[in-house]
Parts: sequence; C-alpha cells; structure tokens
Amino acid sequence: MDEFNLIEKIKQKYYRQSSLIKGIGDDAAVFKQTNQSVVTAVDTFVEDVHFIKNKTMSTKDIGYRCLAANISDLAAMGALPKFYLVSVVIPSNWDESDVLNVFKGLEEIAQEYKMDLIGGDTVSGKNFVLSITVIGYVDENKIRFRSDAKVDDIVFVTGTLGNAAIGLEVIFDRLEINNEAYFIKKHQRPEPNIVFSQAIKKLERVSLNDISDGISSELNEIAKASNVSIMVEDKLIPVNKEVKELSEEYQAKFKYSGGEEFELVGTTSEENWLKIKEIAKNEKIKVTKIGKVLELKRHHVYLDTYDQVLKSSGYIHLK
Amino acid sequence: MDEFNLIEKIKQKYYRQSSLIKGIGDDAAVFKQTNQSVVTAVDTFVEDVHFIKNKTMSTKDIGYRCLAANISDLAAMGALPKFYLVSVVIPSNWDESDVLNVFKGLEEIAQEYKMDLIGGDTVSGKNFVLSITVIGYVDENKIRFRSDAKVDDIVFVTGTLGNAAIGLEVIFDRLEINNEAYFIKKHQRPEPNIVFSQAIKKLERVSLNDISDGISSELNEIAKASNVSIMVEDKLIPVNKEVKELSEEYQAKFKYSGGEEFELVGTTSEENWLKIKEIAKNEKIKVTKIGKVLELKRHHVYLDTYDQVLKSSGYIHLK
Repeated sequence: MDEFNLIEKIKQKYYRQSSLIKGIGDDAAVFKQTNQSVVTAVDTFVEDVHFIKNKTMSTKDIGYRCLAANISDLAAMGALPKFYLVSVVIPSNWDESDVLNVFKGLEEIAQEYKMDLIGGDTVSGKNFVLSITVIGYVDENKIRFRSDAKVDDIVFVTGTLGNAAIGLEVIFDRLEINNEAYFIKKHQRPEPNIVFSQAIKKLERVSLNDISDGISSELNEIAKASNVSIMVEDKLIPVNKEVKELSEEYQAKFKYSGGEEFELVGTTSEENWLKIKEIAKNEKIKVTKIGKVLELKRHHVYLDTYDQVLKSSGYIHLK
Repeated sequence: MDEFNLIEKIKQKYYRQSSLIKGIGDDAAVFKQTNQSVVTAVDTFVEDVHFIKNKTMSTKDIGYRCLAANISDLAAMGALPKFYLVSVVIPSNWDESDVLNVFKGLEEIAQEYKMDLIGGDTVSGKNFVLSITVIGYVDENKIRFRSDAKVDDIVFVTGTLGNAAIGLEVIFDRLEINNEAYFIKKHQRPEPNIVFSQAIKKLERVSLNDISDGISSELNEIAKASNVSIMVEDKLIPVNKEVKELSEEYQAKFKYSGGEEFELVGTTSEENWLKIKEIAKNEKIKVTKIGKVLELKRHHVYLDTYDQVLKSSGYIHLK
C-alpha cells in the first residue's frame, strides 16, 4: 500500500468549513480564528480490543463508530464538531479496500456533521489502530463542564440506556432479545447527541457527560468533579421495552455499565429542567429525569436510598 | 495497568498556556481563541517500525522523539507549539514504568517549548503505538506554505543533513564513523528548529518544509506544490566533516534521503535571503544556500544540471 497514493484517495475534494485555511497537503493544517473557543479530544479504536473486523462491525462501521465517539465528546462539552485528524496503523493482512472502507465510514458521519478531514498519518504495524482527534467550537460561556453540578439540580439523561451493550451480546449470540437489528445498530452505528446538546445551548449552567463507560461511571465523574452526591432512582432509568423482559441482573448490568450509544447525562437547575423538557419535546428527543444532586455524603452516587451505593464500575454496593 | 490511575500520574500539575480553559479531566479540552490562527498535525510512532525499544532508543527517547516530530511540523508552518494530545496503545509486555518513561520524555520536550498535555486516550493492544496531535498558533499572514516558492527564489537549508540516518546505522553497527555519540543523539533526540522558524517570522513570503523524509522528498514537495522547478548543487548540500569521509554513495544516500533530524528547507526572495543570513548569524544557526527556484521544466528537482533529476526517493536519475 502506497502512503501518498492512499492520502490522494482519502483527501476530500472540497472542504465544508469556511474557517479552514489549509487542509491536507502541507506540514500541518491551519484554521482561522472565530469568536468561539476551540474544543479537542482524541479517541482510539484497536482491532480485537474494540472491535472484531467483519464480526462485530464492518470496516465502514469502524470508521463511523470511532468518529461518532469523538463527536460525542464534543456534544458533552456543548461544542459543535468542525474538523478531524486521523492516525491509522495498517497491518499487512488489511488490504487497501479495507482501509478505504474505514475512511468511507468516517466520511459518512463527517458529512452528517459538515466536518472536514484536515490531517492524518498512515503507518504500518502489527495490528490495526484508528486514532482520531476531533476539533470543534463552543461559546466560552456555554461550555458544559462536568464540574458544574450544584446541590438541588435535577439529574437527567437522554434516550434509553444499555442498547449498544446489548447489541454486542446479540452479535456474539450470548443474548436473545426481540428487535435484534435495533440493538445491533446501536452498537455499530451509534449517533452522538449533537442535536440535543445544541438545542439546549442557550441555557445557563448545565453539567454534561456523554455515556461512554456506562451511566454509573459518568454519574460518579460528575459528582466527583462537582464535589456533590447524586441520588438516582432505579425505576426512572430509561430502558427500552424489550430490555424490561430481561432478568433483573441483566437489566442492571446493561443500564448501569453499558455505554457507547452516546446518550448524554447531565444536571441542571429545576428551572432549566422545565425548559429542557420543552426543548426536547419540540426536538422529539426523549429526555428523562432520573434523580437529584445532593450535598456530598460519604459516597458520590446513591441508588434509591443512602444504603445503596452505585460504584463507577456499575457495581451496586449495599452498605 | 489501570487507565484512570495512569492518567492521574501523567496529568500535569499545572498548565503553562494562558489560553487554556480546560486541560485533562472532562470529555474534551478547551482553549480560547487568540488573534492567531490554529495549526494542527498528527504523527504516529509504532514499535518495531519506527523504533526498537531499548535498542534504537530508550522509552524516554520514544516520547521525546515523537513529540519532536510534531513540533517540527509546526516549525515548518511558522507556528509556535502550544498543546498536545496523546493516544497510546499499550501491549501486555510493556509495564507501567515503560509507559511512564515515554510520558517523561514527552514532558521533557513539552517543557522546553512550554507546551501543555491537554488530552489523551490509553488503550491496550498487541503492539505499542504512540500517536500525538499537536496544536499551535501562527499569524495568519505569516503561515509558511510549501506552495509559496517563486521563480528566482533562493533555496536554503538549516543545519547539516544525514546525521539522524547515520545515527541509526551506527546503532545497528552497520557503519563506522567518528563522533558516534553525536550522530546517535541526532537520531534519538532530534531538535525541531522552532528557533529558526520564529527568528524569521517577520519576513514576508517564505516557503518552508521540515526535512522528515529526506531533502529530495521535501524539495519535490515544495516544487510540486508551487508549480516550479528547483535546481540544487550537490557540493552546496551541508554535511558534517565526518560525513565527508564516507563513500560517495553513502554520502548521497544520507544527505538526500536521510531525514528526521528536523532541519528546515525553504525558499525565499534574494532580498529576504540576505536578511535570513543576518538573522541566522545573530541566532548562531547554520543556514546554507543550496540552489535556486526555476521555471517548471519537465521535472521538479534537478541536481547540478538539467541532465540529472533528483527523485522524491533520493534516487538520482540520469536522463
């Protein structure tokens, strides 16, 4: 595989972002100043760790899914994605069409969000690694920090939880559930919730995380960063009707530890919560109140009562 | 190895850049817009492809060397580096101290250039991969594009060439040369030429590339991007005195195809060239005129006469 040839093939024919000065084709990419702040994150996807090629996902899905994770990080900051850079390690058992399919998947989701591929590096190696850096813009006074939760805030979550994790179990034939294709798609083609994040952008103070490692982990991060406790109610955690047919144990596992469908969890004032419900209704986005922010007790996240602690791992610890 | 634990260990205690709003510890990092443009590039370093651990370089060198390559890309754009994000794939045969040493090497060069580590991702995988995204600032009217060469420009290069490539041969015991340690250091600890790039920042129009793939490749890139020819003189290409003791064949190989000591090659007007010589003298930087920019002929880069073509690969082709 010829690196220069490959770059020619994956280079965009035109760029979508007006703030871009130079994309691919020099030592580095350059973009202009706007009146917003710049937000950036990196996410890495490794063969046989995050996916099994043509088993858990197609080569096109790999690109789509990896950029989706990055875009989701920006959604969780209240930012709009603009650019991405790609580093790809290509092993000898991948042929050029595999790699081009990964880039097709990247381009597919990039197009949805009007993003431009502005840089990259392609190298050879023993196993396939896709590492993406995403860059976006946000208004400086509307950055959604996880450290902004305050006592008496409402805790809310978008969508329903556990679906992507269930999808992966279904792919491995380890779980039977109705509506299989829906769950598999949640694993292979998750949608970052930019629409919600942008729809609430006028609101003051919202703390926000995207659910990549499961809601237990995210709630603990918010509570820790904000120096508060959070109490959530088990019966309020939104799951799909098919999920309710599963055993209690499975339900708890998927809803507390299953991430990567990239829903958002956040906290905001009672007053803002009413606005969020209204906005979500207009945008046809499901949003659910799942708990409240409390003063810091001995632990960060409680489930139903102070006698039950929800650990980062999703483990429910009885005191 | 615990990912969260590792992040705590590599996180900077304080940040150096005043434009940084949020570093590590949320879904993404945020920095303020300044009145400059933002420059970004990514570079990837793979075990047993770009280095052999504790043979061609130490774990600390790996970090230093990989960030040096990134900083060099910014030098070649006229930009000053500010931030970096790190994605690292860690195989099971690397222990935590190895990984921490890589980050020590990163921090060492980051400190030299007052850069901040603002994001990252650490994942497991079959072989070690270090992928770095660098971000810097440049004045919009002083970006050093490779497409800015013009007919009658002087072609110049900083430093001396071939040293890092020679260093690697010495490490493998494939070459004998005086002053071994100097050449090995050029391979393991190359210095990006930010000082030169910044020293000439007031000058109008300079086309610039950093020499990562050898000067033949870089000259071809400049000539192609600018739609011109370049003629360089073999006897003007600067090499160290030890290199002149090598066979003609070796000399040609190292000086035309050896990159990665991160010198800069560029072109500018005769008038600017006089200024560059003066600036370089004051800064004690070696800079050498090696040729001229000509109207586009049949090939992009010629060596000594129109009868000798210098290919991207470093191959000298006699017509």
